[in-house]
Amino acid sequence: MVFQFEPIGVIHSCFREKFGIPRQSGLVPAAKARLELFSSRIPPESLSGIESFSHLWVVFIFHKVLGLKKKPMVRPPRLGGNKRVGVFSTRSPFRPNPIGISVVEMEAVCIGPHETVIHIKGADLLDGTPVLDIKPYVGWSDIVEAPACGFASERPKPRLSVVFSKKALSQCMEREAFGAGNPKPLIEQVLELDPRPAYHHSRSAEASYRLKLIDFDLAWRVEGETAVVISLEPIKTASQDNPSTI
Amino acid sequence: MVFQFEPIGVIHSCFREKFGIPRQSGLVPAAKARLELFSSRIPPESLSGIESFSHLWVVFIFHKVLGLKKKPMVRPPRLGGNKRVGVFSTRSPFRPNPIGISVVEMEAVCIGPHETVIHIKGADLLDGTPVLDIKPYVGWSDIVEAPACGFASERPKPRLSVVFSKKALSQCMEREAFGAGNPKPLIEQVLELDPRPAYHHSRSAEASYRLKLIDFDLAWRVEGETAVVISLEPIKTASQDNPSTI
Repeated sequence: MVFQFEPIGVIHSCFREKFGIPRQSGLVPAAKARLELFSSRIPPESLSGIESFSHLWVVFIFHKVLGLKKKPMVRPPRLGGNKRVGVFSTRSPFRPNPIGISVVEMEAVCIGPHETVIHIKGADLLDGTPVLDIKPYVGWSDIVEAPACGFASERPKPRLSVVFSKKALSQCMEREAFGAGNPKPLIEQVLELDPRPAYHHSRSAEASYRLKLIDFDLAWRVEGETAVVISLEPIKTASQDNPSTI
Repeated sequence: MVFQFEPIGVIHSCFREKFGIPRQSGLVPAAKARLELFSSRIPPESLSGIESFSHLWVVFIFHKVLGLKKKPMVRPPRLGGNKRVGVFSTRSPFRPNPIGISVVEMEAVCIGPHETVIHIKGADLLDGTPVLDIKPYVGWSDIVEAPACGFASERPKPRLSVVFSKKALSQCMEREAFGAGNPKPLIEQVLELDPRPAYHHSRSAEASYRLKLIDFDLAWRVEGETAVVISLEPIKTASQDNPSTI
């Protein structure tokens, strides 16, 4: 018994690779994305009335894990990457059917002659994510009073303080001057959560990392409890999904 | 671009036809269901740790609308069945990809040599529903503070008071005596929401209805603001999905 689905749209997101994506929606409010509907299949009236809802569920495909081998148990980053639990007690992408659900804040629905786009905030979605469905967030049904949430009870706290080098700071301001928006809040919110794999957390030596955000390669290093933003450079290399040490 | 998914399991539910299913999860707490995992594909360790969560998301297929024609706009029952809105501003099953998400309360995970079953409560799921995924409900991410919910802001209030005929009452007690559980709370919770199509609400004449619950045909009629339970009879006819007037 097999069911087939065709995406209704695609996500254009500031997250250009898996490294750096917050591990749940809502953690990085500065993360903006656009959900572009495929207008050949989805007429704009399908969205009529959606503007009166503040939040939406996005049902999507974890497309970067398609075809990868799945195991019944996974090691959630929250448990330090050591302890294994059943995949269904996690929100890991490595699930038998790699379908995700994320609640996002809706900023606007924009309908033009050639495209229909929903602007969203706080998403934890990779650029290029295929979207299967959008649903309104319905408070009286979707809000559970005092749920028990096992090992995921606590909202992750910021682990690193974030400082910018002079160079990085002037690059942020330069982008703002050119109308591209100041990426500083986004960078701060992404790095303070410490996106490094858990086995990097205890590295005593200074280590440097790169991750792709919006349209730049972000170079940063960790010094103790501080993430130091080194620079923002234009993306040069081919798309790459693993955290890379410089 | 087409994506294929195979169900991980199937729902065995007290709701044997679409008529009577509450129009969101959590509305009928007495609604019990079993989620049976396909053990040939899904080993029981996939659930390890899930018992520490009180609520789960069930990602499922609205299998009774597969292949039916979809329109970009629908008439939600909540708006009286007259006003049309875009399908993406509703949780209607008639969506381009008929995938549903429902949050349910978990009662127990039962693992035996031949089957793995999750017992759930409060589901709005039809018997036989194919399940694509299960996810833990994560409060700090899934609970939105004070969301705006457009025309779906208010939790539906009970519209009918429910009374039982002597015959129906003794049939309920008989079931209890035989260890099948007393279906009275379930019947009350289903009928007080007035499951009739909106265009039936204003019918002045007494009208009678049937709907299938658990393993019986429930006969009831509406007198003004009251639902009168007539009887519970063994299911005789072939499965039938439309509300039927006796």
